[in-house]
Amino acid sequence: MFTISINRHMTVKVVENIKMREKTLTMETLNPQVKAVEYAVRGPIVLKAGEIERGLQQGQKHPFTEVIKANIGDAHAMGQKPITFLRQVVALCSFPELLESPSFPEDAKVRAGRILQGCGGQSLGSYSASQGVDCIRRDIAAYIKQRDKGVPADWDNVYLTTGASDGIVSILKMLVSGQGLSRCGVMIPIPQYPLYSAAIAEMDAVQINYYLDEDHCWALDINELHRAYLAAKEHCHPRVICIINPGNPTGQVQSKKCIEEVLHFAFEENLFVMADEVYQDNVYSTDCQFHSFKKVLYEMGPEYFNTVELASFHSTSKGYSGECGFRGGYMEVLNLDPEVKAQLVKLLSVRLCPPVSGQAAMDVIVNPPLPHEPSYPQFHESTILGALAEKARMTEHILNAVPGIKCNPVQGAMYAFPSIFIPPRAVEEAKALGMPPDMLYCLRLLEDTGICIVPGSGFGQREGTHHFRMTILPSMEKLKVLLEKLRDFHIKFLKKYSSLEELER
Amino acid sequence: MFTISINRHMTVKVVENIKMREKTLTMETLNPQVKAVEYAVRGPIVLKAGEIERGLQQGQKHPFTEVIKANIGDAHAMGQKPITFLRQVVALCSFPELLESPSFPEDAKVRAGRILQGCGGQSLGSYSASQGVDCIRRDIAAYIKQRDKGVPADWDNVYLTTGASDGIVSILKMLVSGQGLSRCGVMIPIPQYPLYSAAIAEMDAVQINYYLDEDHCWALDINELHRAYLAAKEHCHPRVICIINPGNPTGQVQSKKCIEEVLHFAFEENLFVMADEVYQDNVYSTDCQFHSFKKVLYEMGPEYFNTVELASFHSTSKGYSGECGFRGGYMEVLNLDPEVKAQLVKLLSVRLCPPVSGQAAMDVIVNPPLPHEPSYPQFHESTILGALAEKARMTEHILNAVPGIKCNPVQGAMYAFPSIFIPPRAVEEAKALGMPPDMLYCLRLLEDTGICIVPGSGFGQREGTHHFRMTILPSMEKLKVLLEKLRDFHIKFLKKYSSLEELER
Repeated sequence: MFTISINRHMTVKVVENIKMREKTLTMETLNPQVKAVEYAVRGPIVLKAGEIERGLQQGQKHPFTEVIKANIGDAHAMGQKPITFLRQVVALCSFPELLESPSFPEDAKVRAGRILQGCGGQSLGSYSASQGVDCIRRDIAAYIKQRDKGVPADWDNVYLTTGASDGIVSILKMLVSGQGLSRCGVMIPIPQYPLYSAAIAEMDAVQINYYLDEDHCWALDINELHRAYLAAKEHCHPRVICIINPGNPTGQVQSKKCIEEVLHFAFEENLFVMADEVYQDNVYSTDCQFHSFKKVLYEMGPEYFNTVELASFHSTSKGYSGECGFRGGYMEVLNLDPEVKAQLVKLLSVRLCPPVSGQAAMDVIVNPPLPHEPSYPQFHESTILGALAEKARMTEHILNAVPGIKCNPVQGAMYAFPSIFIPPRAVEEAKALGMPPDMLYCLRLLEDTGICIVPGSGFGQREGTHHFRMTILPSMEKLKVLLEKLRDFHIKFLKKYSSLEELER
Repeated sequence: MFTISINRHMTVKVVENIKMREKTLTMETLNPQVKAVEYAVRGPIVLKAGEIERGLQQGQKHPFTEVIKANIGDAHAMGQKPITFLRQVVALCSFPELLESPSFPEDAKVRAGRILQGCGGQSLGSYSASQGVDCIRRDIAAYIKQRDKGVPADWDNVYLTTGASDGIVSILKMLVSGQGLSRCGVMIPIPQYPLYSAAIAEMDAVQINYYLDEDHCWALDINELHRAYLAAKEHCHPRVICIINPGNPTGQVQSKKCIEEVLHFAFEENLFVMADEVYQDNVYSTDCQFHSFKKVLYEMGPEYFNTVELASFHSTSKGYSGECGFRGGYMEVLNLDPEVKAQLVKLLSVRLCPPVSGQAAMDVIVNPPLPHEPSYPQFHESTILGALAEKARMTEHILNAVPGIKCNPVQGAMYAFPSIFIPPRAVEEAKALGMPPDMLYCLRLLEDTGICIVPGSGFGQREGTHHFRMTILPSMEKLKVLLEKLRDFHIKFLKKYSSLEELER
């Protein structure tokens, strides 16, 4: 039946094989650690939202005209405009002929010229060193020193990364080892950003959950750390503690005292500290302040500052710039064994280098225009952060006015993570459908309103509680509409699934 | 002695701990799979070259005034100028205000406008879908179809990646599983590009070496495949075969017949085929032609085309554009189980998306200006490839004129991988220094001439043979000087370590 362009002998073999040939890569043969990976931020609800969006484009009817994606911290997708200065520098680096153009400000040209000087052949198209472009690493170290009020920062400890995720995964990769009782345990907050659980699953390490205290604005309770650590010690070797501050998805900003306690605990128990500080510029509550783990460690004295192994992560994707697509980021490591450092460089060198345009974007963020420079007046980072603070307050305010929704203050980051009451009947229906109750909630919300948010079960939460994560990134107007639709849906949802008594409670 | 900003109880604890606290992450506790990783392209020789370079800048004396880095396929670092059209499109995407500028050609504006339409909020700063921007995936599929003379290409099978490396690692990650006899075996050519051995080591899979035939211009011999496969079957489960065509570091271009044999072998033995085709545009020998594994598979008939699982990889870093720093690339997968495909998307979604500016660069490469478009006359890809072909011939010619160096024709890619005679006395000295003989050779070359190339031992080679890899990327003039310095060094090296008889042989 088929014409085959090979000799007869082979033809025979083919025919024999037609029946017997199976796929090499199936769900049965797939790497089980890959199977174990979960990533809710782009999970089933988001895939469904994509389907519906395509359906709308093809004229399908829905009770709404557009899908609003509040599932991911993607500022530009939500309409935030890029920072002109940052984009000017990146454009100048990409097409250096523009350095001659009078329509670009001097300070942008100086930044671009300096970055290009640091690139092989003065081109963004050359591989950079695996740790990143030298002059950008120096700028980052200078920025950290200034941020931390003079705490020394060595550019040799700074590594550019492909977004923060790449740095987090690289450090975890170094730490994960051992079998049985000596298998590496990684302490992560619950709720967490699912990159952590995904990486831990992929590396077959042990996930150690420490629960944040929802009743106290998602604070980190040192006693809970001890509890989790001691329980884990029974079956693995806890070696790392991950902290996300400001919190994702929980939005809390940690107090200096709390950070001191965590660092002391890590010191005592010989834990490697991974501080995810990508939201360091996103602090909204006037009674909160960002304290870097490094600065607090320094202030605890040299016994701490010279011994505790710490990695801190930052990114171009959050803050006021929201440049997610450039995949820029960096990490600063402290007290890394010199030989281990060489191993880290070796590991990073296999993937050659982080995207150089992302490195350029990172450089602008740590090296913004100064008051005397021409671009300073147009550099509106405070406007953006001010607007986010307003949205944070409005979100908390509207959500807390809804019966059956309780939302902690959004002190920082860019998410609300309210707890939601889900009536027993809805819980049963979810069970019957084989999904977590808050996934059913988010699914129904999506189908009814076109609003796409992520179920709390994707981030982890205390047994029996239910949450969702939504971003506060849509424009003020859109966010208000979103929250009102959400309120109306929630009330309808309660009515649908509750008995009268439950409603009166 | 130290003032500590915590309570007394803690101070006491600190003092107790000062002596006992050890590092958490040491060479002893480091993930052994990370320790096992090797990556010669940026290995010890290259680190040494960096040292020397910094030394020169600080006025240190050396028998040369500059380090010439011929260790890595980094075209722009070697002075190749970027393609204007590509950079115009990237600059327009980065700073859309330029779409109003009369100094940019229409066709570049159309490309940029189309890409931005495909981005969330029409911004390069938004995350793209994890598989990449839809319209770019469509352009890639159209390009593949045209390249393969009409063989159907489905954009749903196309995934943008962070350089080709990211795609190769992602596919391997899916395939690697099993313990003991069922541990996944990965067949790779020797010599190989060390990304493969590094990834295999990191994932703790089994590396199965099949040796390319140096006596026949590094051809792939099907009998050698059978030998390697049968030997490996004794101790693991061979599941994947990796082919690099055109070859890196070996520069051969595979014949259609050879590719047919490989695909038939993969069909017979149920192997997943990974075709590293990043040098598909870098073919220099007039008697060679690039055949994509996909097109050959198609021509073998539907039993093959509809069953063999194939992944092909491409990149912005090579070809005529040489845009390494943008970390752009894509992979096309064939016959992937639909459930497995969903797992792949899940795995990719954890790292959110490939750099969007790299995706834009990839789009230009697959969608260059057409003859009727204004940028066509300036689009000089053939000039660049022509120059590379000339350098390939010159390199082969000069190297083969040196006693004790034998270089196969550089049919494609951008490297020469000659075999070098290393006198027994030099081999002994290397042994005494605890390094492979060709590393000693490259080290001495670097110290004497400032030329940085990579020892063959970093790519793998037959026991007792010695090679080095050098790129053909420096400018014609520089390359000529480099090759002449290399020749003089080699003769000096032979004299230094050889007895008279050896020289007369």
